[in-house]
Amino acid sequence: MPSIVKVLRLGVAVLVSSLAVGSTAARAADPLPSWNDGASKRAIVAFVDEVTKAGSPGFVPEAERVAVFDNDGTLWAEQPMYFQLFFALDRVRELAPQHPEWKTTEPFASLLKGDVKTALAGGDRAILQIVMATHAGMTTVEFEKIVKGWLATAKHPVTKRPYTQMVYQPMLEVLTHLRANGFKTYIVSGGGVEFMRPWTSAVYGVPPEQVIGSSIKTKFDVRDGVPVLVRLPEVDFIDDKEGKPVAINQYIGRRPIAAFGNSDGDLQMLQWTTAGAGPRFALYVHHTDGEREWAYDRTSSVGRLDKGLDEAAAKRWTVVDMKKDWKVVYPAVAK
Amino acid sequence: MPSIVKVLRLGVAVLVSSLAVGSTAARAADPLPSWNDGASKRAIVAFVDEVTKAGSPGFVPEAERVAVFDNDGTLWAEQPMYFQLFFALDRVRELAPQHPEWKTTEPFASLLKGDVKTALAGGDRAILQIVMATHAGMTTVEFEKIVKGWLATAKHPVTKRPYTQMVYQPMLEVLTHLRANGFKTYIVSGGGVEFMRPWTSAVYGVPPEQVIGSSIKTKFDVRDGVPVLVRLPEVDFIDDKEGKPVAINQYIGRRPIAAFGNSDGDLQMLQWTTAGAGPRFALYVHHTDGEREWAYDRTSSVGRLDKGLDEAAAKRWTVVDMKKDWKVVYPAVAK
Repeated sequence: MPSIVKVLRLGVAVLVSSLAVGSTAARAADPLPSWNDGASKRAIVAFVDEVTKAGSPGFVPEAERVAVFDNDGTLWAEQPMYFQLFFALDRVRELAPQHPEWKTTEPFASLLKGDVKTALAGGDRAILQIVMATHAGMTTVEFEKIVKGWLATAKHPVTKRPYTQMVYQPMLEVLTHLRANGFKTYIVSGGGVEFMRPWTSAVYGVPPEQVIGSSIKTKFDVRDGVPVLVRLPEVDFIDDKEGKPVAINQYIGRRPIAAFGNSDGDLQMLQWTTAGAGPRFALYVHHTDGEREWAYDRTSSVGRLDKGLDEAAAKRWTVVDMKKDWKVVYPAVAK
Repeated sequence: MPSIVKVLRLGVAVLVSSLAVGSTAARAADPLPSWNDGASKRAIVAFVDEVTKAGSPGFVPEAERVAVFDNDGTLWAEQPMYFQLFFALDRVRELAPQHPEWKTTEPFASLLKGDVKTALAGGDRAILQIVMATHAGMTTVEFEKIVKGWLATAKHPVTKRPYTQMVYQPMLEVLTHLRANGFKTYIVSGGGVEFMRPWTSAVYGVPPEQVIGSSIKTKFDVRDGVPVLVRLPEVDFIDDKEGKPVAINQYIGRRPIAAFGNSDGDLQMLQWTTAGAGPRFALYVHHTDGEREWAYDRTSSVGRLDKGLDEAAAKRWTVVDMKKDWKVVYPAVAK
């Protein structure tokens, strides 16, 4: 039970720790050091200032400071294809010895011959087959281990970086700045929720309970007296486009006041967020940097940004010009 | 931007506020004043002490301190029928003028004649019809207003109390005690998630994003340029029995370390919670108090506790004897 001594000790500890945090913040007066000065940076800082300034007309109580972030293309890269698909392809190769039938069955046969293009020519159906063959059939605990194991060793084919080091340093700073100002930061991604949760806490500071994504169904079962959740080869929910506001409402039950995306798949999330009363913030990351990252928008098959670009212009949302706005793209790597 | 003065001011403010909280806590040394001394109370206090004591073998980091609570029969009463069903019946009466066909269609016809028993004789199918007729067809924003409006005026037929004052005072203290010790408290209920979220924050201190429940599907739509979510007459998820661990994994993505329920519908949630490593806590509220509340268990159609009672005995879970363990049932009401 809390004695007065314990309470005093707590009080002092809190004071000391808030001073420690504070002095770091005071030293690093710029909360977004990887952003060049410009309209995008100013818009982010101004919005946070507005909603946190007590007594101002735009003030938003802390409980309502919810910010949602798409993941692929917004917090980490998504080219030349979604990273989760690299994971699935690696899993196909690893599981192949247990599936001799894959040698003669598409899309697996082409994949195993190294011909990804032919394998994926089957479109959504082929992708679904690959995802179900690699993401279902195990328990949730087993799947988490598989994802962590893959991330620990896999490297991106172009940059040769671990995938978790292909996150955007400027966006990490936005996440941190928002949280330092009382925001709860959520990921709302078309990616698989159980593919993201094992690492988002360490990489983004976003805990599992603040990660929303696509999902397959799971089934509760008791095996040898031990309760497990088994992952079934059946789509539960696709968290994309119209699905994003649906999932936000389902999981969070509040309308966010800030939303960050990079594609038409995020458009409805930005619409839903900005349709609420009071100050609202919507931002698109526009991939304009073919040298440091990739340049793509209206005609890309991955992360297409077309309707969103038009609506952003019409509604004066913030559009980040990656090439001009970002001093760096990825975090510095200790080599 | 945080100046050193602002930082110091913050530090002092935090110190002062933690002292204020602390001195209240020191005065009220007993965190569970509405509980009689006994095994149940001791078990709750001992568990919280164990997982929060730094350096002890049972210590659990704050991020992992997740506690899940059933709602109906665990946090508030559920007799003579689920309160959400009272809401639905009141809605049927209110909507009847817009539905002349109900006069001759069951289960509505009997309901409108005041014959609830005949109306509900149709079982799950009848209940589903009533729920869909009253819970779907409007936007999420409209539904929230409807729920709040009902709660502001509706009274329980037996106690004549507002429904939100039929919550269990001893359980409110458990929620508060857990949160004071770094726990995140969640509701995981068979009740409708959007029926609970409008009031759980004020009544239980549980914010919308920590409320998990059954749901119907919603659809994103843009009406006159305004994005809305429309509630559809289609079941999305039933958060009961095997569904509870599934939903916990889906929404939270962590296994709770403490679970509180009152019926066989909570059994799988308690099993899933206690199957993790380290200290675990499971508690059943046993409705033994026919005078102050209701007495029911193995044969009740609402909140049946049969298998759960056996498993609790076998696994030495805490079983609250409401009559013996609780000094009061409901909070004191200012009349």
